[in-house]
Amino acid sequence: MALHEECGVFGIYDLNGGCARDAYYGLYALQHRGQEACGIATINDLELSCRKDSGLVGEVFSEAELDALNGVMAIGHTRYSTTGGGGRENAQPLTLKYVKGSLAVAHNGNLVNTEALKTEYEYKGAIFHTTTDSEIIAYIIAQERLQSGSIEEAVIRAMAHLRGAFSLVVMSSRKLLAARDPWGFRPLCIGRRGEAYVFASETCALDSVDATFVRDVLPGEVVWVENGELNSIRVQDRPPSRLCVFEYLYFARPDSVIDCQSVYESRLLAGKYLAREFPREADVVIGVPDSGLVAAKGYAIESGIPYNDGFIKNRYVGRTFIKPGQAEREKAVRLKLNPLRAAIENRRVVVIDDSIVRGTTTRQTIKLLRDAGALEVHMLSAAPKFISPCFFGTDIPDKSNLIAANYTTDEICARIDADSLGFLPVELLTKIAPDSMCGICDACFTEDYPTE
Amino acid sequence: MALHEECGVFGIYDLNGGCARDAYYGLYALQHRGQEACGIATINDLELSCRKDSGLVGEVFSEAELDALNGVMAIGHTRYSTTGGGGRENAQPLTLKYVKGSLAVAHNGNLVNTEALKTEYEYKGAIFHTTTDSEIIAYIIAQERLQSGSIEEAVIRAMAHLRGAFSLVVMSSRKLLAARDPWGFRPLCIGRRGEAYVFASETCALDSVDATFVRDVLPGEVVWVENGELNSIRVQDRPPSRLCVFEYLYFARPDSVIDCQSVYESRLLAGKYLAREFPREADVVIGVPDSGLVAAKGYAIESGIPYNDGFIKNRYVGRTFIKPGQAEREKAVRLKLNPLRAAIENRRVVVIDDSIVRGTTTRQTIKLLRDAGALEVHMLSAAPKFISPCFFGTDIPDKSNLIAANYTTDEICARIDADSLGFLPVELLTKIAPDSMCGICDACFTEDYPTE
Amino acid sequence: MALHEECGVFGIYDLNGGCARDAYYGLYALQHRGQEACGIATINDLELSCRKDSGLVGEVFSEAELDALNGVMAIGHTRYSTTGGGGRENAQPLTLKYVKGSLAVAHNGNLVNTEALKTEYEYKGAIFHTTTDSEIIAYIIAQERLQSGSIEEAVIRAMAHLRGAFSLVVMSSRKLLAARDPWGFRPLCIGRRGEAYVFASETCALDSVDATFVRDVLPGEVVWVENGELNSIRVQDRPPSRLCVFEYLYFARPDSVIDCQSVYESRLLAGKYLAREFPREADVVIGVPDSGLVAAKGYAIESGIPYNDGFIKNRYVGRTFIKPGQAEREKAVRLKLNPLRAAIENRRVVVIDDSIVRGTTTRQTIKLLRDAGALEVHMLSAAPKFISPCFFGTDIPDKSNLIAANYTTDEICARIDADSLGFLPVELLTKIAPDSMCGICDACFTEDYPTE
Amino acid sequence: MALHEECGVFGIYDLNGGCARDAYYGLYALQHRGQEACGIATINDLELSCRKDSGLVGEVFSEAELDALNGVMAIGHTRYSTTGGGGRENAQPLTLKYVKGSLAVAHNGNLVNTEALKTEYEYKGAIFHTTTDSEIIAYIIAQERLQSGSIEEAVIRAMAHLRGAFSLVVMSSRKLLAARDPWGFRPLCIGRRGEAYVFASETCALDSVDATFVRDVLPGEVVWVENGELNSIRVQDRPPSRLCVFEYLYFARPDSVIDCQSVYESRLLAGKYLAREFPREADVVIGVPDSGLVAAKGYAIESGIPYNDGFIKNRYVGRTFIKPGQAEREKAVRLKLNPLRAAIENRRVVVIDDSIVRGTTTRQTIKLLRDAGALEVHMLSAAPKFISPCFFGTDIPDKSNLIAANYTTDEICARIDADSLGFLPVELLTKIAPDSMCGICDACFTEDYPTE
Repeated sequence: MALHEECGVFGIYDLNGGCARDAYYGLYALQHRGQEACGIATINDLELSCRKDSGLVGEVFSEAELDALNGVMAIGHTRYSTTGGGGRENAQPLTLKYVKGSLAVAHNGNLVNTEALKTEYEYKGAIFHTTTDSEIIAYIIAQERLQSGSIEEAVIRAMAHLRGAFSLVVMSSRKLLAARDPWGFRPLCIGRRGEAYVFASETCALDSVDATFVRDVLPGEVVWVENGELNSIRVQDRPPSRLCVFEYLYFARPDSVIDCQSVYESRLLAGKYLAREFPREADVVIGVPDSGLVAAKGYAIESGIPYNDGFIKNRYVGRTFIKPGQAEREKAVRLKLNPLRAAIENRRVVVIDDSIVRGTTTRQTIKLLRDAGALEVHMLSAAPKFISPCFFGTDIPDKSNLIAANYTTDEICARIDADSLGFLPVELLTKIAPDSMCGICDACFTEDYPTE
Repeated sequence: MALHEECGVFGIYDLNGGCARDAYYGLYALQHRGQEACGIATINDLELSCRKDSGLVGEVFSEAELDALNGVMAIGHTRYSTTGGGGRENAQPLTLKYVKGSLAVAHNGNLVNTEALKTEYEYKGAIFHTTTDSEIIAYIIAQERLQSGSIEEAVIRAMAHLRGAFSLVVMSSRKLLAARDPWGFRPLCIGRRGEAYVFASETCALDSVDATFVRDVLPGEVVWVENGELNSIRVQDRPPSRLCVFEYLYFARPDSVIDCQSVYESRLLAGKYLAREFPREADVVIGVPDSGLVAAKGYAIESGIPYNDGFIKNRYVGRTFIKPGQAEREKAVRLKLNPLRAAIENRRVVVIDDSIVRGTTTRQTIKLLRDAGALEVHMLSAAPKFISPCFFGTDIPDKSNLIAANYTTDEICARIDADSLGFLPVELLTKIAPDSMCGICDACFTEDYPTE
Repeated sequence: MALHEECGVFGIYDLNGGCARDAYYGLYALQHRGQEACGIATINDLELSCRKDSGLVGEVFSEAELDALNGVMAIGHTRYSTTGGGGRENAQPLTLKYVKGSLAVAHNGNLVNTEALKTEYEYKGAIFHTTTDSEIIAYIIAQERLQSGSIEEAVIRAMAHLRGAFSLVVMSSRKLLAARDPWGFRPLCIGRRGEAYVFASETCALDSVDATFVRDVLPGEVVWVENGELNSIRVQDRPPSRLCVFEYLYFARPDSVIDCQSVYESRLLAGKYLAREFPREADVVIGVPDSGLVAAKGYAIESGIPYNDGFIKNRYVGRTFIKPGQAEREKAVRLKLNPLRAAIENRRVVVIDDSIVRGTTTRQTIKLLRDAGALEVHMLSAAPKFISPCFFGTDIPDKSNLIAANYTTDEICARIDADSLGFLPVELLTKIAPDSMCGICDACFTEDYPTE
Repeated sequence: MALHEECGVFGIYDLNGGCARDAYYGLYALQHRGQEACGIATINDLELSCRKDSGLVGEVFSEAELDALNGVMAIGHTRYSTTGGGGRENAQPLTLKYVKGSLAVAHNGNLVNTEALKTEYEYKGAIFHTTTDSEIIAYIIAQERLQSGSIEEAVIRAMAHLRGAFSLVVMSSRKLLAARDPWGFRPLCIGRRGEAYVFASETCALDSVDATFVRDVLPGEVVWVENGELNSIRVQDRPPSRLCVFEYLYFARPDSVIDCQSVYESRLLAGKYLAREFPREADVVIGVPDSGLVAAKGYAIESGIPYNDGFIKNRYVGRTFIKPGQAEREKAVRLKLNPLRAAIENRRVVVIDDSIVRGTTTRQTIKLLRDAGALEVHMLSAAPKFISPCFFGTDIPDKSNLIAANYTTDEICARIDADSLGFLPVELLTKIAPDSMCGICDACFTEDYPTE
């Protein structure tokens, strides 16, 4: 699977203090959304502090550093670098000091009008130090704050300038805010623990700090905590909501609930629909770890064919792993995924992956199964056919590298050496999130982009 | 689950060179057997080199260091510190120079007569620099080498002194050896890749270097590679073989095959036997990640009750994780294991763990399930009741801390707040490894120790 | 000696490339001007790269990093933190991207109107990320660039806003510039190596890259290299020039020549004038390492009393040194400076330090000499009496801590337990730099500040 | 100057505790004797602890680590690697556990019979883990301890086996010992602070912990502290004593006193004798930093020609410095030593270095002086002509690389491009240490080796 992960954001307001430590646990729960860099900013006695660096949460923060960051508000960020260089200087939260005090911003998503905004503001005198969307967002909020009576008004006004995906947590000297773009591309939820409020990309981060789920931030909404109270305003004239479907299929943790839809249930459903669309005569159903596993269970439930583990994933293969040379790409896959011969040998196998992008990894995966003795390999993709890139933060390669944009299903089946192949039909996509309060963005399968 | 993991050993002899890199991949595959420290020693042109340090394989070795270690033989080790201090100085392989040249030893297991051996040899003039078994084993091998015509004879002679568990890989200037104690407590297998030979704790490490399984090293056997040929001698007068049953239940990777028994199959069988012994009226079967998952699948298959994922494990909680304070132990469990409410709520749950040691973690796990809405929680342990410690390397606490040594099943059930509780009957233990060519050591359940 | 050191700046334009490496050697030569942090920014194919961090030059840069920074222009900076926190985020050069491209600035000095400038620009919409003067200077240059036809004009226009001390090196996409404040508080010189041009705080940095001295940048001048040619413009309406006298007495390396005056000669002259003003009957003249040593040689030459080394300085006592507790301050001095008993015992000693600030270190130094057997200790200060703080970057404590602002010479003599005491008369200050093309700032001795 | 430096040893016994911190300060004072690695071992409640690593004292120890090492006895070591690989594993003190308890050894010097000893003991069953002399010394002491009634007797007996240079500090569970080889090649002294005793390579280390000098350890003597009392025994049948003359000329700090001879005085005397032997018509006398400076002052005093500083040494050029490529060797010298033009230009210069080994650095040094405007350069060496290597720890290259072993003085003068050249006559060597209680080893000038 070649799709990459998204960033994670977290915010907490707790007058009992200790917020840096809560942010630490929250970021741990969101680590799957980005392993490149992370950071925590806190406010204590109006004083802003920040620590951020490249590396995993467990590498960046020591106990002493967390204690030093102590505060009554904190925001945090885990970063997956969507745009090239992801060094230390692009780590978030982004912090700045301006005439109204301090400001810290953490951002998940991708703007589509970054360049236009930069040019516009640079001609007005703006100077940017980084190449991140976060800095331009922070800049516009700060500029609008000079014209506004409050930070929440400034955020709402700033949102009028921004086109694309953003789920933000924002911290001023006295307020903690969360904002979600009018389309609702990326998730953002609200939790409560006693008198404290928590904002997070996913509900699993609420669980990690013993907060209970209150509700999702609505598309186009700004919520904020002020004097212990939760407040809200919402952008007028909103487009139809469009949550990125890959939050359900790939990005989010299965124990999260996004826009009232359980991620786990959504993946199970994808598997069940695959079973209905593509019934196969087979002995076993397996999934490609990690994000294909739940759909495989759904297929097994629906079809009655037994589910089994087909691969053991090496949990230690991480950022520092030294890969074998180019000539040994198959070995590289196997170092990470070892087939479980006991489950595969002499069996007809249905194998489910979350999606098929370039096709190269899929071909190697199938080869591993055949080498382990599979009699037949029936490949199914829990996502429809990718035909177009994403402009809202999902890291999909350009069209020339998308196998489904260039070949028919039969051609792909031959190229990956499968006995049969099926993709979830795009018209079933909305059915995998029946409880969701949001619409679905499926532009990468349909080219029906929500914005120009 | 509170049992700790074992060390892993790896050795390779390949006249094409590049052995350090193979050892690196082998150790990656064995990383689950020890995350405390690791090391690789190589021989090139009779010259011994070694790099070892505390940390994970991915942290200790850079590409440049692997290249510098290049050689035609290599041995490697991943260490779980069974005895207190596990700093850099106790990392393995242990290397030494003596009158016959160089020697390197990597060791998995635990001797029971360490202190007696130390005293005996110190009075003969030995001086030890570390507190590890490995050093005394290396010392005795080197001493015996002075009286022997060959290194393999020296290893066989050394084995007469050693009581307890050991699976060794040994490297002299010209030969690579592997040796397993006469009881066969710890696994050790042989693989082949073209002209190259590989020794490893588990078969998953053979897979990682594209070697095919040849056979296991037999209890009491010494095998060695010399001039490209595999040779063998075996200790006379051997006791019955006794492989540690926790290799099947807990230590080994499910994709490994130990003494001809698939680890995955063994865990499935444990679950199936639990289903026969403890039928329950329930809506779902779940396992405690990671080592309870396969048994849960076995229970589901046998019982017909659907299997589902019950917890999502945070894969990033590692050595550097800063835990919450003592008052928040339950939170500490939850940061690692988050229950999947969608699978649990309003359901009667059978939950399977690999074993129950102190009972404290089990109680917290059950509480998490009840908080997530479980109607009933039926707890099953894939291991029998622990009543006695292990002297051969498995890290089981003393009797006063073993809940099953102090309470009846009903008392334990009340203490952990389960609706019912069952342990795999000890008499079924041998049945979970029907294909194994070895006997089983079950002393921690029976006090029937294989040595005095 | 308790005065602290200044920052160092360096710039090079060489179409042959390899400029990062030259900057590295230049910063090594300027390391004495700041050990807190350092950085190098380069331009290659219009692309700006920068690496900076806290630490010494030798710690921050590896060979691979220097190679990666390769370019045809480079600027560098070594930082002594004059204002509190000196972490990684305040390291220089400061780099930014704006509508006109890239800009990098390295700065030595201290503005006196920072706060007023910040407020003024923040109300116009500026947002600052750091608390450094460098950022505000870079911001103003970038702002002025939007109104100007060239970067050099922007720098000249920016200088009209800045009050206080600054010696800058600036790098735009195509030009390398150097600018010095109209008073000329801090040094800045120009060198040449073949077709390449070099700018540096001191001539010793020119020597380190085999460049030959061309001339000093004049107070109020902006010079720049464009298409291989050196150009210059100069601020109109300049005040009288006022180089900080401590560049001669303390900050600069003795092998540097500043504004045509050899630093070494200047210190020798200070010693000679002390000998004329304060003739003593003594057996030996010694200096307090390092900056008192040359003045002591000057005293010896003028007086005919033999010079000798009086202390051996421990060269390894650096940033990481763990000091003894408060109760052992004398020991702390001695760990750094050990008296040379052979030169002191049974002798009447004249000892020269570069200045006397609080008096506490001086008292301990004299005690060390008495303990080593000195019969008499005659203390002389190569600087006049400190009576007032500095606002231009020299780290002098406030008046209440300046011993000479609170006590007469006789009282100080008693407090430091000297047999006699003398300070260089302030009216001789101008005589120690007879070759200098600049006037001298002596405000810390006279309260005659060059700006309000 | 190409001679390398020696190791430093330190030991302290203080019932008030805090000995690790004293060892830290002592090693700081001895850092000039080795920058490769360092370590401290302590005894507290009979428990031996040790921390050692490659790096400077200030890099290896943090405050927390020093506190953790607290004890009533400590020994320490700074290492200059005389034999190839100097990694972490060869750092000292060497510690071991044996039947009689714990033992720690720190060693300065070089044995000449290492190989013979190794072979002898290996045939008796010894196994060595490192390639250091220290390990074999520790081994022999431990072996002898098994046959002896006390550790001091064991050390005396071990000394009978050792040929060559060694100054040792040794720590057993209850005693601190110091031992010096019968020739007295390397220095070792005794100090006292209240009830505490201190042993150190040089007196400057006594000063650093406020201890007063008691006396030197005599050649062939073992001293030890037991129950707060200092005791001594001495080897019978000793050869004439032969302290390495480079301790006076090069290794030791000028503020140290070795065998009753001030190092500073000794260097002054060398300069004075040079002045008598080689009177020159010149305007200035300069020295090559650091070890040629004092001899230059001696020459100036004796000749009446003014002394001046000729070079400024860059104090920051250390282990991590990235040197220019091979083609720029002259630049490499200049980055470290910058000539002081003000002192040299248009002058006839006498320049004194501590010795001339290969001649290449000397040629570059003279070129720097000529480029800085020297009219004449008269080179003098404070050491006689090197004609033979050293087997006792001084790092002198083999004969083919010693310029004086291959060329006449006139030929050397031409090769280094000096106007004249002189070496201290070897017959004057004994005169530069008139107060020394020891004889002098001058084998590298005379081939008169004290042992075969």
